[in-house]
Amino acid sequence: MWIIKTLVIVSHPEIDNSQTQQFLKKGADDIQATWHHVEELDKIDIQKEQGLLRQADRVIFQFPLYWYAAPFGLKKWEDEVLTRNFIYGDKTFPLEDKEFGLIVTTGMPLKDFQKGATENITLDEAMAPYRAIAHLGRMKIMPLFSVPQFWYMSEEEQMQLLIDYQRYLSQPFPDSLVNREEWFEKHLHQFVSELGPKDQFTGNLILDTFIQNKENLEQVSDTLKMIKEGEDE
Amino acid sequence: MWIIKTLVIVSHPEIDNSQTQQFLKKGADDIQATWHHVEELDKIDIQKEQGLLRQADRVIFQFPLYWYAAPFGLKKWEDEVLTRNFIYGDKTFPLEDKEFGLIVTTGMPLKDFQKGATENITLDEAMAPYRAIAHLGRMKIMPLFSVPQFWYMSEEEQMQLLIDYQRYLSQPFPDSLVNREEWFEKHLHQFVSELGPKDQFTGNLILDTFIQNKENLEQVSDTLKMIKEGEDE
Repeated sequence: MWIIKTLVIVSHPEIDNSQTQQFLKKGADDIQATWHHVEELDKIDIQKEQGLLRQADRVIFQFPLYWYAAPFGLKKWEDEVLTRNFIYGDKTFPLEDKEFGLIVTTGMPLKDFQKGATENITLDEAMAPYRAIAHLGRMKIMPLFSVPQFWYMSEEEQMQLLIDYQRYLSQPFPDSLVNREEWFEKHLHQFVSELGPKDQFTGNLILDTFIQNKENLEQVSDTLKMIKEGEDE
Repeated sequence: MWIIKTLVIVSHPEIDNSQTQQFLKKGADDIQATWHHVEELDKIDIQKEQGLLRQADRVIFQFPLYWYAAPFGLKKWEDEVLTRNFIYGDKTFPLEDKEFGLIVTTGMPLKDFQKGATENITLDEAMAPYRAIAHLGRMKIMPLFSVPQFWYMSEEEQMQLLIDYQRYLSQPFPDSLVNREEWFEKHLHQFVSELGPKDQFTGNLILDTFIQNKENLEQVSDTLKMIKEGEDE
Protein backbone atom coordinates (compact mmCIF):
# COMPACT_ATOMS: atom_id res chain seq x y z
CA MET A 1 0.00 0.00 0.00
CA TRP A 2 1.28 3.42 -0.97
CA ILE A 3 2.23 5.47 2.08
CA ILE A 4 1.49 9.17 1.95
CA LYS A 5 4.47 11.26 3.07
CA THR A 6 2.96 13.99 5.19
CA LEU A 7 4.80 17.10 6.35
CA VAL A 8 3.11 18.89 9.24
CA ILE A 9 4.40 22.44 9.51
CA VAL A 10 3.47 23.40 13.05
CA SER A 11 3.52 26.94 14.41
CA HIS A 12 3.11 27.67 18.11
CA PRO A 13 5.21 30.13 20.13
CA GLU A 14 4.94 28.08 23.35
CA ILE A 15 4.45 24.56 22.11
CA ASP A 16 5.74 22.85 25.26
CA ASN A 17 2.92 24.46 27.22
CA SER A 18 0.26 23.51 24.70
CA GLN A 19 -1.57 20.36 25.74
CA THR A 20 -3.41 20.35 22.42
CA GLN A 21 -0.22 20.39 20.34
CA GLN A 22 1.43 17.74 22.52
CA PHE A 23 -1.62 15.53 22.13
CA LEU A 24 -1.62 15.95 18.35
CA LYS A 25 2.14 15.41 18.16
CA LYS A 26 1.76 11.90 19.60
CA GLY A 27 -0.86 11.19 16.96
CA ALA A 28 1.41 12.42 14.19
CA ASP A 29 4.41 10.46 15.49
CA ASP A 30 2.36 7.24 15.66
CA ILE A 31 1.74 7.32 11.93
CA GLN A 32 5.25 8.51 10.98
CA ALA A 33 4.20 11.93 9.74
CA THR A 34 7.03 14.51 9.76
CA TRP A 35 6.45 17.02 12.54
CA HIS A 36 8.18 20.30 11.70
CA HIS A 37 7.94 23.03 14.34
CA VAL A 38 8.93 26.37 12.79
CA GLU A 39 9.54 28.31 16.01
CA GLU A 40 12.30 25.81 16.90
CA LEU A 41 14.35 26.66 13.81
CA ASP A 42 17.32 28.82 14.83
CA LYS A 43 17.75 30.21 11.38
CA ILE A 44 15.56 29.36 8.43
CA ASP A 45 17.55 27.48 5.78
CA ILE A 46 15.50 28.23 2.69
CA GLN A 47 16.96 25.40 0.57
CA LYS A 48 16.42 22.85 3.32
CA GLU A 49 12.84 23.95 3.96
CA GLN A 50 12.02 23.91 0.26
CA GLY A 51 13.57 20.42 0.11
CA LEU A 52 11.20 19.22 2.84
CA LEU A 53 8.27 20.56 0.85
CA ARG A 54 9.47 18.88 -2.34
CA GLN A 55 9.71 15.49 -0.62
CA ALA A 56 6.21 15.58 0.84
CA ASP A 57 3.02 14.30 -0.78
CA ARG A 58 0.84 16.22 1.64
CA VAL A 59 1.71 19.53 3.29
CA ILE A 60 -0.22 20.64 6.37
CA PHE A 61 -0.11 23.98 8.16
CA GLN A 62 -1.08 23.44 11.79
CA PHE A 63 -1.47 26.24 14.33
CA PRO A 64 -3.63 27.88 16.98
CA LEU A 65 -5.72 30.76 15.62
CA TYR A 66 -4.18 34.07 16.69
CA TRP A 67 -6.13 37.05 15.37
CA TYR A 68 -7.70 35.01 12.58
CA ALA A 69 -4.38 33.72 11.26
CA ALA A 70 -1.33 31.68 12.23
CA PRO A 71 1.13 32.98 14.84
CA PHE A 72 3.75 35.29 13.33
CA GLY A 73 6.30 32.45 13.32
CA LEU A 74 4.54 30.77 10.41
CA LYS A 75 4.22 34.07 8.52
CA LYS A 76 7.98 34.58 8.97
CA TRP A 77 8.55 31.08 7.60
CA GLU A 78 6.21 31.80 4.65
CA ASP A 79 7.84 35.17 3.90
CA GLU A 80 11.30 33.57 3.80
CA VAL A 81 10.79 30.03 2.46
CA LEU A 82 8.02 30.55 -0.05
CA THR A 83 9.86 32.58 -2.64
CA ARG A 84 7.88 33.59 -5.65
CA ASN A 85 10.04 31.48 -7.95
CA PHE A 86 9.53 28.40 -5.81
CA ILE A 87 5.73 28.67 -5.74
CA TYR A 88 5.02 29.66 -9.35
CA GLY A 89 7.48 32.21 -10.68
CA ASP A 90 9.75 30.06 -12.82
CA LYS A 91 6.88 27.85 -14.04
CA THR A 92 8.34 24.60 -12.67
CA PHE A 93 5.62 24.35 -9.98
CA PRO A 94 7.42 21.98 -7.57
CA LEU A 95 4.33 21.78 -5.33
CA GLU A 96 1.95 20.89 -8.17
CA ASP A 97 -0.59 18.16 -7.26
CA LYS A 98 0.67 17.83 -3.70
CA GLU A 99 -2.15 18.07 -1.16
CA PHE A 100 -2.48 21.09 1.09
CA GLY A 101 -4.30 20.92 4.42
CA LEU A 102 -4.94 23.27 7.33
CA ILE A 103 -5.37 22.28 10.97
CA VAL A 104 -6.55 25.10 13.19
CA THR A 105 -7.04 24.91 16.94
CA THR A 106 -9.14 27.53 18.68
CA GLY A 107 -10.44 28.29 22.13
CA MET A 108 -13.77 29.47 20.72
CA PRO A 109 -16.66 27.22 19.73
CA LEU A 110 -17.26 26.79 15.99
CA LYS A 111 -20.67 28.48 16.20
CA ASP A 112 -18.92 31.81 16.96
CA PHE A 113 -17.29 31.77 13.52
CA GLN A 114 -20.20 33.02 11.45
CA LYS A 115 -21.39 36.34 10.12
CA GLY A 116 -23.38 38.01 12.88
CA ALA A 117 -21.84 35.85 15.63
CA THR A 118 -19.05 37.02 17.98
CA GLU A 119 -16.19 36.50 15.55
CA ASN A 120 -18.16 37.62 12.48
CA ILE A 121 -15.98 35.64 10.10
CA THR A 122 -15.94 31.95 9.20
CA LEU A 123 -12.77 29.91 9.70
CA ASP A 124 -12.86 29.21 5.96
CA GLU A 125 -12.81 32.95 5.23
CA ALA A 126 -9.96 33.52 7.65
CA MET A 127 -7.94 30.77 5.95
CA ALA A 128 -8.39 32.21 2.45
CA PRO A 129 -4.86 33.70 2.25
CA TYR A 130 -3.22 30.28 2.84
CA ARG A 131 -5.34 28.61 0.23
CA ALA A 132 -4.54 31.35 -2.26
CA ILE A 133 -0.86 30.42 -1.93
CA ALA A 134 -1.65 26.72 -2.44
CA HIS A 135 -3.77 27.63 -5.43
CA LEU A 136 -0.92 29.60 -7.01
CA GLY A 137 1.35 26.59 -6.47
CA ARG A 138 -1.27 24.33 -8.12
CA MET A 139 -1.72 22.21 -5.02
CA LYS A 140 -4.84 20.19 -4.24
CA ILE A 141 -6.71 21.85 -1.41
CA MET A 142 -8.12 19.71 1.40
CA PRO A 143 -11.03 20.83 3.56
CA LEU A 144 -10.08 22.58 6.79
CA PHE A 145 -9.60 20.47 9.92
CA SER A 146 -10.63 22.50 12.95
CA VAL A 147 -10.04 21.62 16.59
CA PRO A 148 -12.29 23.86 18.67
CA GLN A 149 -12.05 23.89 22.48
CA PHE A 150 -9.80 20.90 23.05
CA TRP A 151 -9.88 21.71 26.75
CA TYR A 152 -13.55 20.93 27.06
CA MET A 153 -13.35 17.57 25.28
CA SER A 154 -14.19 14.34 27.11
CA GLU A 155 -11.71 11.47 26.91
CA GLU A 156 -13.93 9.84 24.29
CA GLU A 157 -14.06 13.01 22.20
CA GLN A 158 -10.29 13.26 22.41
CA MET A 159 -9.91 9.69 21.12
CA GLN A 160 -12.26 10.50 18.26
CA LEU A 161 -10.20 13.62 17.54
CA LEU A 162 -6.99 11.58 17.52
CA ILE A 163 -8.34 9.14 14.93
CA ASP A 164 -9.80 11.90 12.77
CA TYR A 165 -6.49 13.76 13.01
CA GLN A 166 -4.49 10.70 11.99
CA ARG A 167 -6.84 10.10 9.08
CA TYR A 168 -6.47 13.72 7.98
CA LEU A 169 -2.71 13.26 7.99
CA SER A 170 -2.47 9.83 6.38
CA GLN A 171 -5.68 8.70 4.68
CA PRO A 172 -6.02 9.12 0.92
CA PHE A 173 -8.50 11.81 0.04
CA PRO A 174 -11.33 12.36 -0.70
CA ASP A 175 -12.73 11.10 2.61
CA SER A 176 -14.90 8.43 0.93
CA LEU A 177 -16.24 5.26 2.54
CA VAL A 178 -13.76 3.11 0.60
CA ASN A 179 -10.76 5.24 1.61
CA ARG A 180 -11.93 5.31 5.21
CA GLU A 181 -12.42 1.52 5.38
CA GLU A 182 -9.02 0.83 3.90
CA TRP A 183 -7.42 3.17 6.38
CA PHE A 184 -9.19 1.55 9.33
CA GLU A 185 -8.35 -1.96 8.17
CA LYS A 186 -4.67 -1.12 7.86
CA HIS A 187 -4.58 0.58 11.23
CA LEU A 188 -6.58 -2.18 12.95
CA HIS A 189 -4.01 -4.73 11.73
CA GLN A 190 -1.25 -2.65 13.22
CA PHE A 191 -3.18 -2.04 16.42
CA VAL A 192 -3.90 -5.76 16.90
CA SER A 193 -0.32 -6.81 16.13
CA GLU A 194 0.89 -4.54 18.93
CA LEU A 195 -1.49 -5.92 21.55
CA GLY A 196 -0.22 -8.12 24.41
CA PRO A 197 -0.75 -11.96 24.06
CA LYS A 198 -3.76 -11.82 26.42
CA ASP A 199 -5.60 -9.34 24.16
CA GLN A 200 -4.62 -10.92 20.83
CA PHE A 201 -7.68 -13.16 20.75
CA THR A 202 -10.15 -10.30 21.28
CA GLY A 203 -8.20 -8.07 18.93
CA ASN A 204 -8.32 -10.62 16.13
CA LEU A 205 -12.04 -11.12 16.73
CA ILE A 206 -12.64 -7.37 16.27
CA LEU A 207 -10.46 -7.35 13.17
CA ASP A 208 -12.26 -10.36 11.65
CA THR A 209 -15.63 -8.78 12.34
CA PHE A 210 -14.49 -5.52 10.74
CA ILE A 211 -13.26 -7.31 7.62
CA GLN A 212 -16.42 -9.47 7.47
CA ASN A 213 -18.59 -6.33 7.73
CA LYS A 214 -16.59 -4.65 5.02
CA GLU A 215 -16.96 -7.66 2.71
CA ASN A 216 -20.68 -7.92 3.38
CA LEU A 217 -21.04 -4.24 2.57
CA GLU A 218 -19.16 -4.73 -0.69
CA GLN A 219 -21.42 -7.67 -1.62
CA VAL A 220 -24.56 -5.67 -0.90
CA SER A 221 -23.14 -2.81 -2.90
CA ASP A 222 -22.35 -5.13 -5.85
CA THR A 223 -25.82 -6.67 -5.70
CA LEU A 224 -27.42 -3.23 -5.74
CA LYS A 225 -25.30 -2.28 -8.72
CA MET A 226 -26.38 -5.44 -10.61
CA ILE A 227 -30.05 -4.77 -9.89
CA LYS A 228 -29.64 -1.22 -11.09
CA GLU A 229 -27.88 -2.32 -14.27
CA GLY A 230 -30.69 -4.87 -14.88
CA GLU A 231 -33.25 -2.07 -14.59
CA ASP A 232 -31.36 0.15 -16.96
CA GLU A 233 -31.39 -2.45 -19.75
CA MET B 1 -11.75 72.59 12.25
CA TRP B 2 -11.35 69.29 14.09
CA ILE B 3 -8.11 67.58 13.17
CA ILE B 4 -8.19 63.82 12.90
CA LYS B 5 -5.31 62.17 14.74
CA THR B 6 -4.16 59.42 12.44
CA LEU B 7 -1.78 56.64 13.40
CA VAL B 8 -0.25 54.84 10.42
CA ILE B 9 1.16 51.48 11.52
CA VAL B 10 3.55 50.64 8.72
CA SER B 11 5.10 47.23 8.16
CA HIS B 12 7.89 46.67 5.66
CA PRO B 13 11.05 44.62 6.28
CA GLU B 14 13.21 46.80 4.00
CA ILE B 15 11.50 50.15 4.14
CA ASP B 16 14.56 52.20 3.16
CA ASN B 17 14.67 50.38 -0.18
CA SER B 18 10.97 50.83 -0.84
CA GLN B 19 10.32 53.79 -3.11
CA THR B 20 6.59 53.38 -2.59
CA GLN B 21 6.82 53.60 1.20
CA GLN B 22 9.22 56.56 1.05
CA PHE B 23 6.84 58.35 -1.28
CA LEU B 24 3.88 57.71 0.99
CA LYS B 25 5.87 58.70 4.08
CA LYS B 26 6.37 62.21 2.69
CA GLY B 27 2.63 62.43 2.15
CA ALA B 28 1.91 61.32 5.70
CA ASP B 29 4.48 63.70 7.20
CA ASP B 30 3.02 66.66 5.26
CA ILE B 31 -0.31 66.28 7.00
CA GLN B 32 1.15 65.47 10.44
CA ALA B 33 -0.05 61.87 10.57
CA THR B 34 1.94 59.67 12.97
CA TRP B 35 4.13 57.28 10.99
CA HIS B 36 4.88 54.20 13.09
CA HIS B 37 7.16 51.64 11.48
CA VAL B 38 6.93 48.35 13.41
CA GLU B 39 10.10 46.70 12.09
CA GLU B 40 12.12 49.56 13.61
CA LEU B 41 10.98 48.77 17.15
CA ASP B 42 13.82 47.07 19.04
CA LYS B 43 11.48 45.52 21.54
CA ILE B 44 7.73 45.93 21.50
CA ASP B 45 6.57 47.88 24.56
CA ILE B 46 2.98 46.70 24.83
CA GLN B 47 1.81 49.54 27.09
CA LYS B 48 3.36 52.19 24.86
CA GLU B 49 1.90 50.68 21.69
CA GLN B 50 -1.54 50.39 23.23
CA GLY B 51 -1.18 54.03 24.36
CA LEU B 52 -0.54 55.11 20.75
CA LEU B 53 -3.70 53.30 19.68
CA ARG B 54 -5.73 54.90 22.47
CA GLN B 55 -4.63 58.40 21.42
CA ALA B 56 -5.54 57.97 17.75
CA ASP B 57 -8.86 58.75 16.08
CA ARG B 58 -7.98 56.73 13.02
CA VAL B 59 -5.74 53.67 12.92
CA ILE B 60 -4.28 52.51 9.60
CA PHE B 61 -2.38 49.32 8.83
CA GLN B 62 -0.12 49.97 5.82
CA PHE B 63 2.01 47.30 4.17
CA PRO B 64 3.04 45.56 0.96
CA LEU B 65 1.08 42.38 0.29
CA TYR B 66 3.25 39.34 1.10
CA TRP B 67 1.39 36.09 0.50
CA TYR B 68 -2.00 37.73 0.81
CA ALA B 69 -1.26 39.34 4.18
CA ALA B 70 1.08 41.80 5.90
CA PRO B 71 4.78 40.97 6.36
CA PHE B 72 5.40 38.93 9.51
CA GLY B 73 6.54 42.05 11.38
CA LEU B 74 2.97 43.31 11.61
CA LYS B 75 1.69 39.89 12.69
CA LYS B 76 4.31 39.88 15.46
CA TRP B 77 3.14 43.33 16.53
CA GLU B 78 -0.50 42.14 16.47
CA ASP B 79 0.27 38.96 18.41
CA GLU B 80 2.04 40.95 21.14
CA VAL B 81 0.25 44.31 21.33
CA LEU B 82 -3.34 43.31 20.67
CA THR B 83 -4.08 41.38 23.82
CA ARG B 84 -7.54 39.94 24.09
CA ASN B 85 -8.35 42.16 27.06
CA PHE B 86 -7.31 45.28 25.18
CA ILE B 87 -9.46 44.55 22.13
CA TYR B 88 -12.64 43.28 23.79
CA GLY B 89 -11.95 40.97 26.71
CA ASP B 90 -12.55 43.26 29.68
CA LYS B 91 -15.50 45.00 27.98
CA THR B 92 -13.94 48.50 28.10
CA PHE B 93 -13.44 48.57 24.29
CA PRO B 94 -10.72 51.27 24.15
CA LEU B 95 -10.80 51.24 20.33
CA GLU B 96 -14.57 51.66 20.07
CA ASP B 97 -15.68 54.10 17.34
CA LYS B 98 -12.15 54.80 16.17
CA GLU B 99 -11.75 54.38 12.43
CA PHE B 100 -9.78 51.48 10.99
CA GLY B 101 -8.22 51.64 7.55
CA LEU B 102 -5.99 49.41 5.44
CA ILE B 103 -3.46 50.54 2.84
CA VAL B 104 -2.04 47.75 0.74
CA THR B 105 0.63 48.10 -1.91
CA THR B 106 1.09 45.36 -4.46
CA GLY B 107 3.16 44.65 -7.53
CA MET B 108 0.22 42.98 -9.25
CA PRO B 109 -2.56 44.80 -11.11
CA LEU B 110 -5.94 44.93 -9.36
CA LYS B 111 -7.59 42.87 -12.10
CA ASP B 112 -5.55 39.82 -10.96
CA PHE B 113 -7.32 39.85 -7.60
CA GLN B 114 -10.54 38.12 -8.60
CA LYS B 115 -11.91 34.62 -8.55
CA GLY B 116 -10.69 32.89 -11.68
CA ALA B 117 -7.84 35.37 -12.24
CA THR B 118 -4.19 34.69 -11.37
CA GLU B 119 -4.48 35.42 -7.66
CA ASN B 120 -7.96 33.88 -7.33
CA ILE B 121 -8.80 35.97 -4.26
CA THR B 122 -9.94 39.57 -3.90
CA LEU B 123 -7.92 42.00 -1.82
CA ASP B 124 -11.03 42.47 0.31
CA GLU B 125 -11.15 38.73 1.01
CA ALA B 126 -7.45 38.66 1.87
CA MET B 127 -7.96 41.53 4.34
CA ALA B 128 -10.85 39.82 6.17
CA PRO B 129 -8.73 38.76 9.20
CA TYR B 130 -7.70 42.38 9.94
CA ARG B 131 -11.25 43.62 9.70
CA ALA B 132 -12.43 40.86 12.00
CA ILE B 133 -10.10 42.25 14.69
CA ALA B 134 -11.42 45.78 14.12
CA HIS B 135 -14.95 44.44 14.29
CA LEU B 136 -14.30 42.74 17.63
CA GLY B 137 -12.90 46.04 18.93
CA ARG B 138 -16.03 47.86 17.70
CA MET B 139 -14.09 50.09 15.34
CA LYS B 140 -15.54 51.77 12.25
CA ILE B 141 -14.20 50.05 9.17
CA MET B 142 -13.05 52.18 6.22
CA PRO B 143 -12.90 50.85 2.67
CA LEU B 144 -9.54 49.42 1.62
CA PHE B 145 -7.03 51.76 -0.02
CA SER B 146 -4.95 49.81 -2.52
CA VAL B 147 -1.81 50.96 -4.32
CA PRO B 148 -1.21 48.59 -7.21
CA GLN B 149 1.97 48.82 -9.30
CA PHE B 150 3.39 52.09 -8.03
CA TRP B 151 6.39 51.51 -10.27
CA TYR B 152 4.36 51.87 -13.44
CA MET B 153 2.66 55.11 -12.41
CA SER B 154 3.24 58.31 -14.38
CA GLU B 155 4.18 61.44 -12.45
CA GLU B 156 0.59 62.62 -12.77
CA GLU B 157 -0.76 59.33 -11.42
CA GLN B 158 1.66 59.56 -8.52
CA MET B 159 0.41 63.08 -7.67
CA GLN B 160 -3.15 61.81 -7.76
CA LEU B 161 -2.13 58.92 -5.50
CA LEU B 162 -0.49 61.34 -3.06
CA ILE B 163 -3.63 63.43 -2.74
CA ASP B 164 -5.90 60.38 -2.41
CA TYR B 165 -3.53 58.96 0.20
CA GLN B 166 -3.54 62.17 2.20
CA ARG B 167 -7.32 62.31 2.03
CA TYR B 168 -7.53 58.69 3.22
CA LEU B 169 -5.36 59.62 6.19
CA SER B 170 -6.91 62.93 7.14
CA GLN B 171 -10.30 63.56 5.52
CA PRO B 172 -13.46 62.90 7.53
CA PHE B 173 -15.29 59.85 6.24
CA PRO B 174 -17.49 58.94 4.45
CA ASP B 175 -15.83 60.23 1.29
CA SER B 176 -18.77 62.52 0.40
CA LEU B 177 -18.66 65.60 -1.84
CA VAL B 178 -19.00 67.91 1.17
CA ASN B 179 -16.17 66.23 3.08
CA ARG B 180 -13.99 66.23 0.01
CA GLU B 181 -14.60 69.91 -0.75
CA GLU B 182 -13.86 70.95 2.81
CA TRP B 183 -10.66 68.94 2.76
CA PHE B 184 -9.53 70.48 -0.51
CA GLU B 185 -10.37 74.04 0.61
CA LYS B 186 -8.36 73.62 3.81
CA HIS B 187 -5.42 72.11 1.98
CA LEU B 188 -5.50 74.68 -0.83
CA HIS B 189 -5.29 77.47 1.79
CA GLN B 190 -2.24 75.80 3.26
CA PHE B 191 -0.75 75.12 -0.16
CA VAL B 192 -1.18 78.76 -1.29
CA SER B 193 0.17 80.20 1.98
CA GLU B 194 3.37 78.21 1.45
CA LEU B 195 3.96 79.41 -2.12
CA GLY B 196 6.74 81.88 -2.94
CA PRO B 197 5.73 85.59 -3.45
CA LYS B 198 5.88 85.17 -7.26
CA ASP B 199 3.29 82.38 -7.20
CA GLN B 200 1.01 83.91 -4.58
CA PHE B 201 -1.09 85.76 -7.17
CA THR B 202 -1.77 82.61 -9.25
CA GLY B 203 -2.28 80.57 -6.12
CA ASN B 204 -4.87 82.94 -4.78
CA LEU B 205 -6.64 82.99 -8.14
CA ILE B 206 -6.92 79.20 -8.05
CA LEU B 207 -8.14 79.31 -4.47
CA ASP B 208 -10.75 82.01 -5.28
CA THR B 209 -11.96 80.03 -8.27
CA PHE B 210 -12.23 76.87 -6.16
CA ILE B 211 -14.24 78.66 -3.48
CA GLN B 212 -16.42 80.39 -6.10
CA ASN B 213 -17.11 77.03 -7.78
CA LYS B 214 -17.95 75.50 -4.45
CA GLU B 215 -20.38 78.32 -3.61
CA ASN B 216 -21.99 78.12 -7.04
CA LEU B 217 -22.44 74.40 -6.59
CA GLU B 218 -24.04 74.95 -3.20
CA GLN B 219 -26.44 77.53 -4.71
CA VAL B 220 -27.43 75.19 -7.52
CA SER B 221 -27.90 72.44 -5.01
CA ASP B 222 -30.11 74.68 -2.81
CA THR B 223 -32.16 75.77 -5.82
CA LEU B 224 -32.70 72.16 -6.87
CA LYS B 225 -33.80 71.35 -3.34
CA MET B 226 -36.34 74.23 -3.35
CA ILE B 227 -37.76 73.14 -6.69
CA LYS B 228 -38.08 69.60 -5.42
CA GLU B 229 -39.81 70.77 -2.25
CA GLY B 230 -42.19 72.87 -4.33
CA GLU B 231 -43.11 69.81 -6.39
CA ASP B 232 -43.72 67.74 -3.32
CA GLU B 233 -46.33 70.14 -1.88
